[in-house]
Amino acid sequence: MSSGRLKDFSRLCIHTITTKPWEIETAVEQYAAEGVPAISVWREALCGRDPRRTGERIRAAGLAVVALVRGGFFPSVSAGKRKEALAENERALHEAAALGAPLLVLVPGADPRQPPETSRQQIREGIAALLPLAEETGVRLAIEPLHPMYADTRSAVNTLAQANDMAEYFASPWVGVAVDVYHLWWDPDLEREIARCGAHDNLFAFHICDWRVPTTDLLNDRGLMGEGCIPVRQIRGWVEEAGFTGYHEVEIFSDRYWAEDQKSFLRKIKKVYLEHS
Amino acid sequence: MSSGRLKDFSRLCIHTITTKPWEIETAVEQYAAEGVPAISVWREALCGRDPRRTGERIRAAGLAVVALVRGGFFPSVSAGKRKEALAENERALHEAAALGAPLLVLVPGADPRQPPETSRQQIREGIAALLPLAEETGVRLAIEPLHPMYADTRSAVNTLAQANDMAEYFASPWVGVAVDVYHLWWDPDLEREIARCGAHDNLFAFHICDWRVPTTDLLNDRGLMGEGCIPVRQIRGWVEEAGFTGYHEVEIFSDRYWAEDQKSFLRKIKKVYLEHS
Repeated sequence: MSSGRLKDFSRLCIHTITTKPWEIETAVEQYAAEGVPAISVWREALCGRDPRRTGERIRAAGLAVVALVRGGFFPSVSAGKRKEALAENERALHEAAALGAPLLVLVPGADPRQPPETSRQQIREGIAALLPLAEETGVRLAIEPLHPMYADTRSAVNTLAQANDMAEYFASPWVGVAVDVYHLWWDPDLEREIARCGAHDNLFAFHICDWRVPTTDLLNDRGLMGEGCIPVRQIRGWVEEAGFTGYHEVEIFSDRYWAEDQKSFLRKIKKVYLEHS
Repeated sequence: MSSGRLKDFSRLCIHTITTKPWEIETAVEQYAAEGVPAISVWREALCGRDPRRTGERIRAAGLAVVALVRGGFFPSVSAGKRKEALAENERALHEAAALGAPLLVLVPGADPRQPPETSRQQIREGIAALLPLAEETGVRLAIEPLHPMYADTRSAVNTLAQANDMAEYFASPWVGVAVDVYHLWWDPDLEREIARCGAHDNLFAFHICDWRVPTTDLLNDRGLMGEGCIPVRQIRGWVEEAGFTGYHEVEIFSDRYWAEDQKSFLRKIKKVYLEHS
């Protein structure tokens, strides 16, 4: 395992949702001031803004745009809703292209009114339908497997093995996988599946945070790296061994941290990033 | 799939925890009055009671004792704690024997301060150490894989594949698996792993409830069958095809239902058991 201590912030990226109380303009300014070199942009953060101008602003501040977050949510028992979801994903791809984001993260989705396998089939159909536009806009698609506690409504893809299966089914340079330690840390096959993901050139993104013990909320109780039980550094080692050289994206949903002063939270992120990632 | 509608209550079993507000004496009386033929007893429900006399009382009311719940929780970074856990499990086995329970359900446990694989090794060691007493007391051990959202502190065994691996490692008539739909419904390999479990004579127990959408609490927001997204009847079909002829154990942790009148809750359980299990 090549998981030595990180020496600098050159691979650090932060998701706008992590510092949700900040408008994106503030986030860009503050990340830049703190030497954070990259940002992943949530679509909510773009609300009412011209993505092209926001992209220019981000680059002018010296930051790279790593990804637009998030597309997906393909499945539904309603054909009309599936069509709407596809149109929404097309808008997201155009937005990513305008923003200058080379990647769109897909939260696959699930509809609890139908079997998971039906949802997975609809996810495959959604990605297939989206693929030509991904190629045309030059924006890659990353399937993000989500923790099984989100299997009801957020994702019928719950392990890296399933996401790998799906990416390999497409065998396209435009479709890959986002590996998020929060969703996958518990999986005994994780090391092997990360290697497989890299071997197929499907490892498109790497998200980090921690699993708090105890976790008190299913959605918004994620921890800072080092605060919980996820061996983030070890998993980073597996990801690097698999050939990944991209950014380490800090994606934390936390009512607790959103209630804090965001400047000091940003400094905490930098500190634990070096200590525990 | 032989998952036809259930016609009677002959395979219905209820866990004492499901009607937690009732003392066990009341639970036994009420289950019997409602024609529920079997009970699984949580150790907490025995508090301060002689298990032998409680067992006699249960049988006198015409109920079968399906299992004592729960042993396990083997792993710890502390050798002293592991030793304590083993002693506690030995007490549980003696309690099960006195009660007349043919099965002890094991929640495997996990310690977030060590890698899951270390916890799994300690679980294997714990079961190995317990096995002679299980044979001596005539009480079988059921490894219960828990949902990955409990991987931090409750179980380093999170899929049926892992539980099957462990049971097959022992290859003993005294070690098998408890299949709980709440923990396993999301797994795309579930049907196959249930068949494998049965083929190795390891399918010792079957627990039912439902996954509410949305689920608002990690512990105590389980639903009644039919109230959520788990295909309980389909899974029962797989379990029956695997050769299982035991009880369907209703195990619901729910702040919501515990706050209700338990008599009407018990009638609801019977109603949805026929409609959705």
